[in-house]
Amino acid sequence: MLEDIRAQPDVLRALAGHADEYEAVAREAASRGITTVRLVAHGSSDNAASFGVYAFGLGRAWTAFRDSISLHVYYGAAVDVSGSCVVALSQSGQTKDVVAYVARTRARGAYTVAVTNDPVSPLARAAEATLPLAAGTERAIAATRTYTAQIAALALLAGGPAYAEGMRELAGLIEAELPRLEQAAEDTAVLLEAAERLFVIGRGTEFATARELSLKLLETCRVGAQPLTATDLVHGPVAAAGERFPVWAIAADDANLPTVTEAVSRAAAAGAPVVVTGPAAAGIAGATRRIPLPPAPLPLLGPALSIVPGQLFARALALARGLDPDAPAGLTKVTLAP
Amino acid sequence: MLEDIRAQPDVLRALAGHADEYEAVAREAASRGITTVRLVAHGSSDNAASFGVYAFGLGRAWTAFRDSISLHVYYGAAVDVSGSCVVALSQSGQTKDVVAYVARTRARGAYTVAVTNDPVSPLARAAEATLPLAAGTERAIAATRTYTAQIAALALLAGGPAYAEGMRELAGLIEAELPRLEQAAEDTAVLLEAAERLFVIGRGTEFATARELSLKLLETCRVGAQPLTATDLVHGPVAAAGERFPVWAIAADDANLPTVTEAVSRAAAAGAPVVVTGPAAAGIAGATRRIPLPPAPLPLLGPALSIVPGQLFARALALARGLDPDAPAGLTKVTLAP
Repeated sequence: MLEDIRAQPDVLRALAGHADEYEAVAREAASRGITTVRLVAHGSSDNAASFGVYAFGLGRAWTAFRDSISLHVYYGAAVDVSGSCVVALSQSGQTKDVVAYVARTRARGAYTVAVTNDPVSPLARAAEATLPLAAGTERAIAATRTYTAQIAALALLAGGPAYAEGMRELAGLIEAELPRLEQAAEDTAVLLEAAERLFVIGRGTEFATARELSLKLLETCRVGAQPLTATDLVHGPVAAAGERFPVWAIAADDANLPTVTEAVSRAAAAGAPVVVTGPAAAGIAGATRRIPLPPAPLPLLGPALSIVPGQLFARALALARGLDPDAPAGLTKVTLAP
Repeated sequence: MLEDIRAQPDVLRALAGHADEYEAVAREAASRGITTVRLVAHGSSDNAASFGVYAFGLGRAWTAFRDSISLHVYYGAAVDVSGSCVVALSQSGQTKDVVAYVARTRARGAYTVAVTNDPVSPLARAAEATLPLAAGTERAIAATRTYTAQIAALALLAGGPAYAEGMRELAGLIEAELPRLEQAAEDTAVLLEAAERLFVIGRGTEFATARELSLKLLETCRVGAQPLTATDLVHGPVAAAGERFPVWAIAADDANLPTVTEAVSRAAAAGAPVVVTGPAAAGIAGATRRIPLPPAPLPLLGPALSIVPGQLFARALALARGLDPDAPAGLTKVTLAP
């Protein structure tokens, strides 16, 4: 898992080399007059899809949403999908109901695009266009490098060719920060070693990071980690926060920051230990621990950086608890379940 | 809280009396050629919105999704929302950023509809059309009757006038089942009294139920309850399931059932106590405890029934732990946070 995390700068550089292919798909979608994107995925890929909502909304002013696979594949709803672009995310390209969704929506007139590590996978064969994830071989079972690649892939597809240079710059930034972040993750794991539950909060582009870190903590540490938007935490679940129910907050330096600041202050008032990461971490009052991050080179690349301390923390916490982060019990790399 | 739960049959009957108003809004949307619905809400109302995706998809073959409030209100994205219907759900009609979303999208050409308990609230004033939730006064802080009313309201808006009669029938069904369900909830609270974490799984129309029960458990019992689709549980987090991380599954008798059956079997194999509710509960192998439910009178009304044992369980578990389900620490009824 640590090797995969450390490989992320190389993954970003490799993906940047495919910018032309991404631009060709974006141009094809635009030439068909598409302004609606249906994102489909499971697990970590679905967490990346949460980010796609913002990437396409901000990058191209398109409406993007995580579509329901059930509605189309299991219930066979008669929804008109022509005029939509489907973006299906799957590292392996094997997830059966994602493949079924793509086959069905393609037959019903959608422009279907697979983003996958495997260009000859069932997903790649089902879709009209395939974009390489270029994440290489992930050795650990818990996805790290493939998630970061999916975030960057969506930024590239939505943000255009300028993002290729931004990704190269980000690669250097992550490399420079890794030693400090590895140490901070270990220190924070000591602080939260006994936590059985954790709220992970973010908002906007960083909600994907909250979802992905929660999943990592569940998979590698068996922590009941709960992703919530900062506003939703304040809306009710903050009642559960406290000494034994800490909070991890991702603070981006953007228009959502006041909602994160408010949520941290409420959680701290409830007695919860609060870890704050992100470019705006330094300015948040009430944090027990801060892991500040430099700003990403381009706004849509923030989540590809802010997940890194979370990945390292999940690994460090697993080790602190005597669990093997490289091989969580009961998991295999490729999920063949429908 | 118990009074609110027991009032739900009356709430359903009251709402059924407003079927004409719901039909008028649905006709207005159709007359404008609308086929896209943007659902916005926070907390319990957002859980009901998850169901809206299926209600509109199955009832009218419209594309519906939970839109990002951040994207529009905080980031000011230039997304074209004209031609969309906005359905904003808020019991109080006070939630600031939902009101801001409605004001913004109305100014940009969307047909905006508020579904609220308060016809003179800021939300009602901001929207072009207002539909009454008719849920009466909820006395407990944790929403129960207002959630069920929102589910029924979405079924009515998407399913048409036939649902008014279905809601009256459902009211009688819930009344008849309540004593048995109250007993079953108490027994199950004894079984799971020590659980600090819980997976709550469903799929399709019942994913909303999984989200809502998780929120109730967080708010009233401080349980780290995690809503997941059945497929997403199998995709990774099942690694965390076990004796101290039980599972609550909602089994509807629909096309998604095989995914729920598979998830229960995987969780049981991992040693997790599994409680299964829903109309298909009796046939699921591997359950530690079953709380079967009769089929709902109409398919889109299933979630308004299957949440009831969950609400009762959250209350019983809070009491078993010496907590006050009527007044969770740190919560107020109306969230004025942005």
